[in-house]
Amino acid sequence: MTPEQVVTDLIRACEARDLDAVVALVTEDIEYDNVPIGKVFGPDGVLGVLSAGVSQAASQVEWVVHRQVAAGNTVMNERTDRFLVDERWIEIPIAAVFEIRGDKVSLWRDYFDLDTYRSQRQ
Amino acid sequence: MTPEQVVTDLIRACEARDLDAVVALVTEDIEYDNVPIGKVFGPDGVLGVLSAGVSQAASQVEWVVHRQVAAGNTVMNERTDRFLVDERWIEIPIAAVFEIRGDKVSLWRDYFDLDTYRSQRQ
Repeated sequence: MTPEQVVTDLIRACEARDLDAVVALVTEDIEYDNVPIGKVFGPDGVLGVLSAGVSQAASQVEWVVHRQVAAGNTVMNERTDRFLVDERWIEIPIAAVFEIRGDKVSLWRDYFDLDTYRSQRQ
Repeated sequence: MTPEQVVTDLIRACEARDLDAVVALVTEDIEYDNVPIGKVFGPDGVLGVLSAGVSQAASQVEWVVHRQVAAGNTVMNERTDRFLVDERWIEIPIAAVFEIRGDKVSLWRDYFDLDTYRSQRQ
């Protein structure tokens, strides 16, 4: 798999809310950084964040990738992450950095504006 | 010039607080989007934003590029934009998207957390 394919698989696993598939795509020492919130490490850290956001709060998830570029083991993409919560779509504009080691993600860093998310949850 | 070189020149022009050099590197119809704040268009729009932030408020500017990747006319980078304001360094973690047309930037979109900036200006 190319680094881009690994990232595409990760995005699709999140959209499918398939956390087993997500965990299978990350390294044991992954750094998962939601920049304005903070970092977690390892598959358990990723699970903790995604089980709250992707699998519990939302009944449907669509992460629309607008642009994706790769060089070596680095992939960056621009997305709109959409979450259906209480029958309303929440949309978060994101730009992200990924580092790939082997066929797994070792760094996943999402840049976004926290208030853009919070203001839609009220 | 490659698209990456155009972006590197733009970053350096901002660090040098050389707004004439910035304007020479953008298209007439550039979209400059500070995602949590909003978009401006054209060289005058860019000048309006940068003259306030880069050339007036700050006495020194350092934009540290951590990663940069390109594909076709698209460039993305991950940066820490640093501004020396009233003898204190303000630091903003940013991920950005650029589109290049000819030797100029036609799209410049910075993703960051607005409160991370605001909390350092208080």
